[in-house]
Amino acid sequence: MKNKIGDQTIKFTNCPRIIGNYAIVGEKEGNGTFKDYYDFILKDDLFGEKTFEHAERKIIEQAISQSIEKAKLNISDIDLLIGGDLLNQIISMSFTARYFDRPFLGVYGACSTMAESLAIGAALVNAEYVKNVVCSTGSHFSSAERQYRFPLELGNQRPPTSQWTVTGAGSSILSLSGEGHKITMATFGKVTDYGVSDVNNMGAAMAPAAMSTLISHFQDTKTTPDDYDLILTGDLGKLGSEILMDLMEHNGYKLGKNYNDCGQMIFNNNQKTFQGGSGAGCSAAVLNSFILKKMDEGVFKKVLFAATGALLSTLSSQQGDSIPGICHAVVIEKGR
Amino acid sequence: MKNKIGDQTIKFTNCPRIIGNYAIVGEKEGNGTFKDYYDFILKDDLFGEKTFEHAERKIIEQAISQSIEKAKLNISDIDLLIGGDLLNQIISMSFTARYFDRPFLGVYGACSTMAESLAIGAALVNAEYVKNVVCSTGSHFSSAERQYRFPLELGNQRPPTSQWTVTGAGSSILSLSGEGHKITMATFGKVTDYGVSDVNNMGAAMAPAAMSTLISHFQDTKTTPDDYDLILTGDLGKLGSEILMDLMEHNGYKLGKNYNDCGQMIFNNNQKTFQGGSGAGCSAAVLNSFILKKMDEGVFKKVLFAATGALLSTLSSQQGDSIPGICHAVVIEKGR
Repeated sequence: MKNKIGDQTIKFTNCPRIIGNYAIVGEKEGNGTFKDYYDFILKDDLFGEKTFEHAERKIIEQAISQSIEKAKLNISDIDLLIGGDLLNQIISMSFTARYFDRPFLGVYGACSTMAESLAIGAALVNAEYVKNVVCSTGSHFSSAERQYRFPLELGNQRPPTSQWTVTGAGSSILSLSGEGHKITMATFGKVTDYGVSDVNNMGAAMAPAAMSTLISHFQDTKTTPDDYDLILTGDLGKLGSEILMDLMEHNGYKLGKNYNDCGQMIFNNNQKTFQGGSGAGCSAAVLNSFILKKMDEGVFKKVLFAATGALLSTLSSQQGDSIPGICHAVVIEKGR
Repeated sequence: MKNKIGDQTIKFTNCPRIIGNYAIVGEKEGNGTFKDYYDFILKDDLFGEKTFEHAERKIIEQAISQSIEKAKLNISDIDLLIGGDLLNQIISMSFTARYFDRPFLGVYGACSTMAESLAIGAALVNAEYVKNVVCSTGSHFSSAERQYRFPLELGNQRPPTSQWTVTGAGSSILSLSGEGHKITMATFGKVTDYGVSDVNNMGAAMAPAAMSTLISHFQDTKTTPDDYDLILTGDLGKLGSEILMDLMEHNGYKLGKNYNDCGQMIFNNNQKTFQGGSGAGCSAAVLNSFILKKMDEGVFKKVLFAATGALLSTLSSQQGDSIPGICHAVVIEKGR
């Protein structure tokens, strides 16, 4: 297998590039850490729609259409849309894809979906099956909260280990031609389950999956954490990130100052989100705003983007199952 | 793009082969048309589990592990699992993937998931990213019924346009080496919506998507329906198949005796399923039993497998949305 390295990693010698990217977030996220980096901040989380679910579609639609525009392409130039979201049957992405009328692959990796989409997209572009691919995902606090937890009207108290689902979406256009940062590798994650069953502690449930993928990546590529300017998990939050650092250290890998987590970073400490942000939109929005802009500036030259997802449903938890996690990773290297 | 044909189709010049396949179905399906072709027929739809959801996982797990065995491989030889299912957050496949401890890509194409998995799997194998890939999906009548429709205890009356979700799973092992039928092309489908909103008439909702993908495939590959021994849709059912034939004829394509639909075929007329079978397990079980065995025998030499999916959720229907459909297709050619 000429394009495989080690057990779980594949390499892209044609260097698919991110030629356009866009991040859109809700009002609360727009008051957070990266407020100066987003392309668009909603004034109203309903975004002029009648339901939060329709608003979620609309923010993903805007992320996709604007990323296409930023790549200086037309919709007809897009060969394939890849994406998914957190709602049952990934309706946000499927209904959005209907609007674009281009071939569509629905994927589901919970909050790891941005990395999963980029990994599949880069693989298909690199092999010259398709030229221009949209990779996108998003989430909405209000639609996720009422699907996964409680009716919003209940005003339920949030436990201290909880995270806040990000209202936001990100979209990246991958292409073989054009200028942009390069995706050079992808590591496909394994479903990992350490038996955590607390649905209010997703960081703890997902940290073992992040550990599994990071260690496999380092082993496959014969690299160490020091070889990256930034190792970025998706939405482990503060507690989950600490658990990951502990787990890594127990396995002989020290994650230092070059490690961070989108969920841990996205909100300010005074925004009362406890462990930070979560949701498919969390890593999608942070990657497609702050991270890629800092790569433009040369602050980061080599980023290991490892988005994490908790693969539970309300029903699996009700039936007493623990929470499996997954983490897919892509390496992004500065290309302009 | 050296591996692309036309607008939506990609070709696999390295010819990934189906080196192992397995189909498992429930008791009702085991009394249906293809009773002599399945690898395993359940005696009890709970399959020894406490819930139908856990049974659904177990049938997918058996399909995967036995297909690996039929391919004369060990689990450690598998580079990647690709699959999804109909339950919220694709928990059946995610929890099953946990058991195998191999890299996993979750996909969601509703009942088109078998074709979507095969298309992505063949693309990744063909490009030499991975050697051996499992492509699998399944569904369970009882878990689907109570998630999408009504509590089973209600004994709700079924309308005449309805279909019966198949209890079953299929798994195919794709590989660059070994003997087996070849996947030579894939056509990625567009999300297509003609405005059908009747959740008891999925065939009508999905037929336009099947038409879209079939026409694109014929145009991209400069073929006609006559170039295939069998053109097989996934689960349009009797009514949906008739609608598809009408739609195709209006567009200048006559689907003749070489057209059929897994949903239309899978049950006998006296099994009271109205329009026939449906569900991700429907096309997965039929492909991995009857179709591949008839290809072994040389009855079919070139099959266009076009699985169809309805991309709705209960919530999208409750919010008044219509039902978008999608259809992904792969070409399978006799290889032994």
